[in-house]
Amino acid sequence: MKGTVGELGEFGLIRELTSRLTTTPAVRIGPGDDAAVVAAPDGRVVASTDLLLEGRHFRRDWSTAYDVGRKGAAQNLADIAAMGAVPTALLLGLVLPADLPVTWPTELMDGLRDECRAAGAAVVGGDVVRGDTITVAITALGDLRGLEPVTRGGARPGDVVAVTGWLGWSAAGHAVLSRGFRSPRAFVEAHRRPEPPYDAGPAAAALGATAMTDVSDGLVADLGHIADASEVRIDLRSAAIDVPTQMSDIGKAVGIDPMTWVLGGGEDHAIAATFPPDVKLPARWRVIGEVLPCAVARASAQPQVTVDGVPWAQAGWDHFSGIEDAQ
Amino acid sequence: MKGTVGELGEFGLIRELTSRLTTTPAVRIGPGDDAAVVAAPDGRVVASTDLLLEGRHFRRDWSTAYDVGRKGAAQNLADIAAMGAVPTALLLGLVLPADLPVTWPTELMDGLRDECRAAGAAVVGGDVVRGDTITVAITALGDLRGLEPVTRGGARPGDVVAVTGWLGWSAAGHAVLSRGFRSPRAFVEAHRRPEPPYDAGPAAAALGATAMTDVSDGLVADLGHIADASEVRIDLRSAAIDVPTQMSDIGKAVGIDPMTWVLGGGEDHAIAATFPPDVKLPARWRVIGEVLPCAVARASAQPQVTVDGVPWAQAGWDHFSGIEDAQ
Repeated sequence: MKGTVGELGEFGLIRELTSRLTTTPAVRIGPGDDAAVVAAPDGRVVASTDLLLEGRHFRRDWSTAYDVGRKGAAQNLADIAAMGAVPTALLLGLVLPADLPVTWPTELMDGLRDECRAAGAAVVGGDVVRGDTITVAITALGDLRGLEPVTRGGARPGDVVAVTGWLGWSAAGHAVLSRGFRSPRAFVEAHRRPEPPYDAGPAAAALGATAMTDVSDGLVADLGHIADASEVRIDLRSAAIDVPTQMSDIGKAVGIDPMTWVLGGGEDHAIAATFPPDVKLPARWRVIGEVLPCAVARASAQPQVTVDGVPWAQAGWDHFSGIEDAQ
Repeated sequence: MKGTVGELGEFGLIRELTSRLTTTPAVRIGPGDDAAVVAAPDGRVVASTDLLLEGRHFRRDWSTAYDVGRKGAAQNLADIAAMGAVPTALLLGLVLPADLPVTWPTELMDGLRDECRAAGAAVVGGDVVRGDTITVAITALGDLRGLEPVTRGGARPGDVVAVTGWLGWSAAGHAVLSRGFRSPRAFVEAHRRPEPPYDAGPAAAALGATAMTDVSDGLVADLGHIADASEVRIDLRSAAIDVPTQMSDIGKAVGIDPMTWVLGGGEDHAIAATFPPDVKLPARWRVIGEVLPCAVARASAQPQVTVDGVPWAQAGWDHFSGIEDAQ
């Protein structure tokens, strides 16, 4: 594809984008009508929406359009999985500058399509408009297959806290890229293209998970959301949390404690859940802590999540506080 | 609410926005978790997404935040109705500058909530991020209640073309505002806050509509989409299409043929549908034309929609062509 988005025009661009899509049996009506129609056999639909902005959530010199597509889809599809649902569909809103090469949105679409396929879903609709800042608005849908949704609010004192997926890899990759390096590849790739363990969400629901979330803001921050919604405390055991040797090495090289990445780094979209203490968890789950009762009437100053009994400072990202740069 | 979005911070803003929402029995899990859960009793879910950008789709000096909320919700909920479905839920992605007064997003949310309520739906989730251009990304969901979705592709030669709702009012209001006037109020209000006939969509499906769309790009353009998808032609009878006296008066005042607005103006979100010729339509529907077969192998030059048998020039908006300004 040659030329710019403006030269191709809205309808030409939509044709080009939709021509790249694949479908699934759940898609009853795909792109091109007033709305899409997607199977929701459970009788309930799970839905989540997220925005990615250039310069804020991705940089074109760090990530290809394809990677932005995979990452954008992944973070939404992981939200669906974290409710215990199976992803089914994705809708896309795109703001594009008129002078952007057409290859950018087409490669983005390839990435969205491939990540959807990895999760068993399909892109079913969207909207494109012209604007100054590339913006990718994604809504993901999913089906509960008869299981009850697992919220953040069901953790009970005595439950174990377990996690599956990668922790801190994206943040370590971000640290590498921030310093102008392009390797180690494994961490840079993890930053560009997270691999959420989609199937772990419905599996956790079937195992009786009492609360669940994906790790998008950082492990401590996201477990804080569970502690908050469940009105409990959570204590993590640092000895149960692995720091890979290669991550330690990067930490030494850049002067950062790698536990900062493991406990505070988001965007790997690991799945963290609480389970009753007697549950037999498959090997993919690492038990990393336990759920404790809140002391008396909880003072707001009391930390909800501790590590080996003591507060851990880093509190995750506030997307308006301005502390983070493009990730 | 005093202060700016940046001062309030992400979590404070989300609390403020979600505190304004109302719910419905279809909302099983609302905002605040990884994803929302919404009833989809039909076993299929209808979904559509749209973007509104400041300066392109709305202007803060022409429309209040409340009106932008109502209009943004309306254009998405109308897409759901135009498939023959009942709107159930809406998800919201918001890009906001840090220096924006908090009252803007809170009033936007009031507008979204109220328009959802008018359609029987509720806001169930969203995302807010900081950015330079106010951007409102909306995804609407709906339920078919056992009826088959009505696409754009089912019109057959011999069918009648009927419409319900307002035509050209928003475009006339836009013309008034473009010239620096604030009245006549009825047209300015129609531009700021369309009133789609939501219930007409499922009603048309129940009446046996063969094809349907909402009028968002303009009557001729949107019927062109039906003609294209159905591989038919459509001829409209100008005598069947009313131009209100007051609209004619504005046309004379600004030197524009008001039929330009009625046939070419979008954003009123009227519902246009085709029906078998023997259908008994309730009084709200105006029969304005008929569906004709395509002549032989359709030449691409052949107009798909004619008025009294002759082509009508205005082809609706191409959102990348740059011909339209902020609406």
